[in-house]
Amino acid sequence: MRLSKTFIKTLREAPKDEIARNGALLSRAGYIHKELAGIYDYLPLGVLVLEKIKHIIREELNAIDCEEVQMSALQNPEPWEATGRFSDQEVDIWFKTELASGGLLGLAPTHEEPMVNMMKTYVSSYKDLPVYVYQFQTKFRNELRAKSGIMRGREFLMKDLYSFHTSEKDLDDFYSKVEGAYAKIFERLGLGDSTYETFASGGIFSKFSHEYQTILPVGEDTIYYNKDKSLVFNKEVFNDEVLAEFGATKSDFEEAKAAEVGNIFKLKFKYSEPLGLKYTDESNQAQVVYMGCYGIGVSRVMGVIAERFADDKGLVWPEAVAPFKYYLVGIGEKGMDAAAKLYTGHENEILFDDRNARPGEKFADADLMGMPYRIVISDKTLDQDALELTDRKTGESKLIKLVDFRLD
Amino acid sequence: MRLSKTFIKTLREAPKDEIARNGALLSRAGYIHKELAGIYDYLPLGVLVLEKIKHIIREELNAIDCEEVQMSALQNPEPWEATGRFSDQEVDIWFKTELASGGLLGLAPTHEEPMVNMMKTYVSSYKDLPVYVYQFQTKFRNELRAKSGIMRGREFLMKDLYSFHTSEKDLDDFYSKVEGAYAKIFERLGLGDSTYETFASGGIFSKFSHEYQTILPVGEDTIYYNKDKSLVFNKEVFNDEVLAEFGATKSDFEEAKAAEVGNIFKLKFKYSEPLGLKYTDESNQAQVVYMGCYGIGVSRVMGVIAERFADDKGLVWPEAVAPFKYYLVGIGEKGMDAAAKLYTGHENEILFDDRNARPGEKFADADLMGMPYRIVISDKTLDQDALELTDRKTGESKLIKLVDFRLD
Repeated sequence: MRLSKTFIKTLREAPKDEIARNGALLSRAGYIHKELAGIYDYLPLGVLVLEKIKHIIREELNAIDCEEVQMSALQNPEPWEATGRFSDQEVDIWFKTELASGGLLGLAPTHEEPMVNMMKTYVSSYKDLPVYVYQFQTKFRNELRAKSGIMRGREFLMKDLYSFHTSEKDLDDFYSKVEGAYAKIFERLGLGDSTYETFASGGIFSKFSHEYQTILPVGEDTIYYNKDKSLVFNKEVFNDEVLAEFGATKSDFEEAKAAEVGNIFKLKFKYSEPLGLKYTDESNQAQVVYMGCYGIGVSRVMGVIAERFADDKGLVWPEAVAPFKYYLVGIGEKGMDAAAKLYTGHENEILFDDRNARPGEKFADADLMGMPYRIVISDKTLDQDALELTDRKTGESKLIKLVDFRLD
Repeated sequence: MRLSKTFIKTLREAPKDEIARNGALLSRAGYIHKELAGIYDYLPLGVLVLEKIKHIIREELNAIDCEEVQMSALQNPEPWEATGRFSDQEVDIWFKTELASGGLLGLAPTHEEPMVNMMKTYVSSYKDLPVYVYQFQTKFRNELRAKSGIMRGREFLMKDLYSFHTSEKDLDDFYSKVEGAYAKIFERLGLGDSTYETFASGGIFSKFSHEYQTILPVGEDTIYYNKDKSLVFNKEVFNDEVLAEFGATKSDFEEAKAAEVGNIFKLKFKYSEPLGLKYTDESNQAQVVYMGCYGIGVSRVMGVIAERFADDKGLVWPEAVAPFKYYLVGIGEKGMDAAAKLYTGHENEILFDDRNARPGEKFADADLMGMPYRIVISDKTLDQDALELTDRKTGESKLIKLVDFRLD
């Protein structure tokens, strides 16, 4: 991409009411545009980051045989009434809207009910199970406050996966597979070191669920981890009774602020029972379907990555989610020509700052936009038949002979 | 994809209230699931078709330097109030919803207002123009009736492109480029022969806009075309006064039913003026930005393709948008083994019917699901070291030696 050809530009000021660092930096660097608190547009660079995150998640879920669907945002109240969750007392973040032909609709804050309801069409026998279905879908949550940039949206992108099984054992096995996939996903996203699977509160049918929490000073959650981080608890289950089960005491743990980037949940019969999702087993008996659900906040992950790695100069993207691997600056006529030559054929790997602007301005924008590597080609580097490669994270620069340099 | 591994299955009956053929066939064949009238879920095969349509559109728009963004569905009323379009009298298909913290929001039925509003952040000088920005975005329209399957959704996927210019000439030039891109898009979608660019009514600033209409008996529109189809009018502008301008009379034309799959519109100052989108020209004078908009109904195109090519056995997909090129059936133990061998490594091109089912059932599902080619490998074909390849459209079959067959 050529910077001279894109409409985006870096901004000196973030939107006035943008107090979250991720929101401010992403706005200033031209990744997002704020519509209202918790409601954002994604600009070309932002779309690329979201697509890279989605691609990683999609690959890992497809590898464990999950199938991708796309469900509607507008919600028929019926299945939600069957579980009691259409009530604003029960779920207090509904956006609701009136159908012109009469009746209320909801805007999906999550999709358990329509998913279970849909499966009644496709699951009737034990032969139809297991089923693993996911989507990337915009969720709507009518939050009273939304001050965390894209880390807490009123409208946000989520990956939600639902699994359906004939037995608790089968659910447990798949749940473990998802744990494996999630470990790979957060590793590939660059959050492996800082993201922990924590024990969180369960529900009617399960003692615990699990959350994926990324250590982050501005995180809304608090987690407790032991010395080797093998045992991590969410605040809500961090009490003597629970700890005793694990042979631990509070003094073994340290506290940290964290942001929830995913969660996994053994729902068992929570939704399948009230919605009547049953199958006939091998002896022709009707049985309720076991179920699990597994979320990752896609746009939130983008915000968390922005928060986690940013420094005082701007964003710092891990290579796997960076919109481009390189930010290319040509200085002087010869430098610009050589840069243009390097760029050709590598439009998807290089963000080429071909603007008519001062080097200092280009360097500042390179830092703010946060591509993993900056390449500078100038008369000075060309004197040595070289380019200068700078690591955005460490700030280390080195000269590399043009003949030796490989974009990969 | 292996049919034994996916949760979808063909259904004997369409949803009871599904009167549109596209909705009924796509439901029965396992591409979509109906939530409510005009509100659908897309199942794995449906997601693949949508992705292929998006891919074609994206390629052709990127080729004319358009940039992809993703705007929000939830709408701040402010810019819409500036153009008068937040009013339900002015725009009668709004879904509106209440923000918990107070105030009404809309669900975007289109995106001119937020797009123009956003551009006020990025466009200030003639140097910032032109700008071409598009998105694939879910639109919400509170239709009183929605009985046309996925051809008229209350929630549907649309590609909308907006262009911003310093002059009418620049707008005209880009408009022509979009006409070129649209011709390529509909050609690639398999709708080239049957889709016409028609004159439609303009607006405040332009005498005409253009619609892309695909000839279709169940289409909601009526178009009029002359003998060589060089001149095509939408019903609303098909009158003596307009025809006289083109030196034509009504008797030169034939009538046909058609479905609108796209439209392009020279908006000029329609939105930029009330929203105050201006730039400073070379003499430092403030000027209003010229603007165009260009839509394609992505999910509607899927419905139109389904309607247009289906026969009494089921769907018939053009190769470019088919979820898979081949539907593979193995018959008998040897046939199944050979089929499995052929399938390996070609999971993205072949839908492998590896179910334990009768050949007749598999053939019926192959026809209903509509992949362009059916491959059958049985003991009988293997006796001749061959497979049988059947063209879904023509029904023609031929035996091809296994050694000669290439998947491409």
